[in-house]
Amino acid sequence: MRIIKSIGQMREFSKVARLENKTIGFVPTMGALHDGHLSLIRSARRENDFVVVSIFVNPIQFGPKEDFRKYPCPFKKDASLCRKAGVDIIFHPKPNDMYGPDYKTYVEVMDLDKYLCGRLRPGHFRGVATVVGKLFNIVMPDTAYFGQKDAQQARIITKMAEDLNMSVKIKIMPIVREKDGLALSSRNIHLNQDERQDAAILFQALNLAKVLIKNGQLNPGKIIRQMRNLINTKKTASVQYISIADLKDLKPVKRIKGKVIVALAVFIGKTRLIDNIIVNRKLGNVP
Amino acid sequence: MRIIKSIGQMREFSKVARLENKTIGFVPTMGALHDGHLSLIRSARRENDFVVVSIFVNPIQFGPKEDFRKYPCPFKKDASLCRKAGVDIIFHPKPNDMYGPDYKTYVEVMDLDKYLCGRLRPGHFRGVATVVGKLFNIVMPDTAYFGQKDAQQARIITKMAEDLNMSVKIKIMPIVREKDGLALSSRNIHLNQDERQDAAILFQALNLAKVLIKNGQLNPGKIIRQMRNLINTKKTASVQYISIADLKDLKPVKRIKGKVIVALAVFIGKTRLIDNIIVNRKLGNVP
Repeated sequence: MRIIKSIGQMREFSKVARLENKTIGFVPTMGALHDGHLSLIRSARRENDFVVVSIFVNPIQFGPKEDFRKYPCPFKKDASLCRKAGVDIIFHPKPNDMYGPDYKTYVEVMDLDKYLCGRLRPGHFRGVATVVGKLFNIVMPDTAYFGQKDAQQARIITKMAEDLNMSVKIKIMPIVREKDGLALSSRNIHLNQDERQDAAILFQALNLAKVLIKNGQLNPGKIIRQMRNLINTKKTASVQYISIADLKDLKPVKRIKGKVIVALAVFIGKTRLIDNIIVNRKLGNVP
Repeated sequence: MRIIKSIGQMREFSKVARLENKTIGFVPTMGALHDGHLSLIRSARRENDFVVVSIFVNPIQFGPKEDFRKYPCPFKKDASLCRKAGVDIIFHPKPNDMYGPDYKTYVEVMDLDKYLCGRLRPGHFRGVATVVGKLFNIVMPDTAYFGQKDAQQARIITKMAEDLNMSVKIKIMPIVREKDGLALSSRNIHLNQDERQDAAILFQALNLAKVLIKNGQLNPGKIIRQMRNLINTKKTASVQYISIADLKDLKPVKRIKGKVIVALAVFIGKTRLIDNIIVNRKLGNVP
């Protein structure tokens, strides 16, 4: 496994791979790798000649009051996990090389950033789309892998690649969970023991929504109220949002019909966690 | 020469060319080709294995009150000029294929669109950057050629390619002029005989600025006033803006020092024309 820090060297590797007609699978990450990332890396490993993992904590996707400096950076541990998973290249560029002092260009996917997390984190998804666009141009992958846990990110990246005619294929992979249902996240390490126990309530609330929908409850407001009540039984939990939305435009639905995404953001103590499930109304037992 | 309308087919051509290690020179145009475009095509022809010219009148770079529908589209004549110039591929996509009904993604180069034409045409350069980004992703050129006549466009595209780590090299080629100095433009065909004669005043005004600077006039305000007076001697002419600006950030300079761009937009009758020159203060005869 090689660790490449230079943008030019990364590009050179990919150009040679392309000339040799080899495929590149790409997993962009901010490091602090967990089994969620590893499931993406394993898919990339199965389906490609080369696997590139980028580790880059992207400053422009953090708001002024957000946790950029607090974001964990266990690079050695990450590198060891990548090596074991059969990664060929870790691309680990320097922030100053990615964003020079005169940096000016941004990629924006309109409308899709208005809902869910985007509503509460202005500029976040512009930062995400921009860095992913840059990384795609440097790494030139055939396929890039993202997790469904960041559902809005997944939708925005998919739309960006489609709209801008990028030649990369985007694959969105299922959420990986702990035994109690907690979605894996680099932020979980901030939870103390009590908070860790309470954090399982996110997945329980999502399952409650699923059960209610399958039992014929089609009114999002009523479902959200019950989810909120359930989450509020945990002392450390504070709901930021719960949304039942259209899969494509992420806009909250007025009545449930077909596939919807149930998504939420909840503070557990000071740690903000997100999770979601997709529920297909048609599969439910409708009374 | 092949005419390709399908985005997929264009991409396929470029993928094969890349696998064969052939270089692609790319000239993006809105058609209505003139000798300015042909000088770009000739450079592309000299320097690459394949030459791709795109002909696409990009709807998203026209404002609501601008001349999208009036923009000339002499496709057969353009195709004939391309064939004679040794072009390999004309890429001529359909507007609905480039921008589906659910299109949402835009590329924006901040700040550089605040000055010159950008100040008067909100959204124009966002439309230009977006379509050029899309075309680069489809055509995957090694080198793309743009004219210095659209100086702000040239600067914005160069900055976009740099910021987004695009692997394409941007070449900016000199302005091609008629004998009387009028810069070639697809819009020149809208000029009647009197207007055509008056239109030479743009270049004369730029030359006046050059002479004044070389004679030691370093105050942009004074130069612009003299340029304006000269242009106003023509009945059909009406100045939209004149700016003496920094080459890199396009911001008007307060005092002339080193290289500057002198740029202007002038209505001749109802036709809006632009032109510019770069003047190097150091090369002048400073008294």
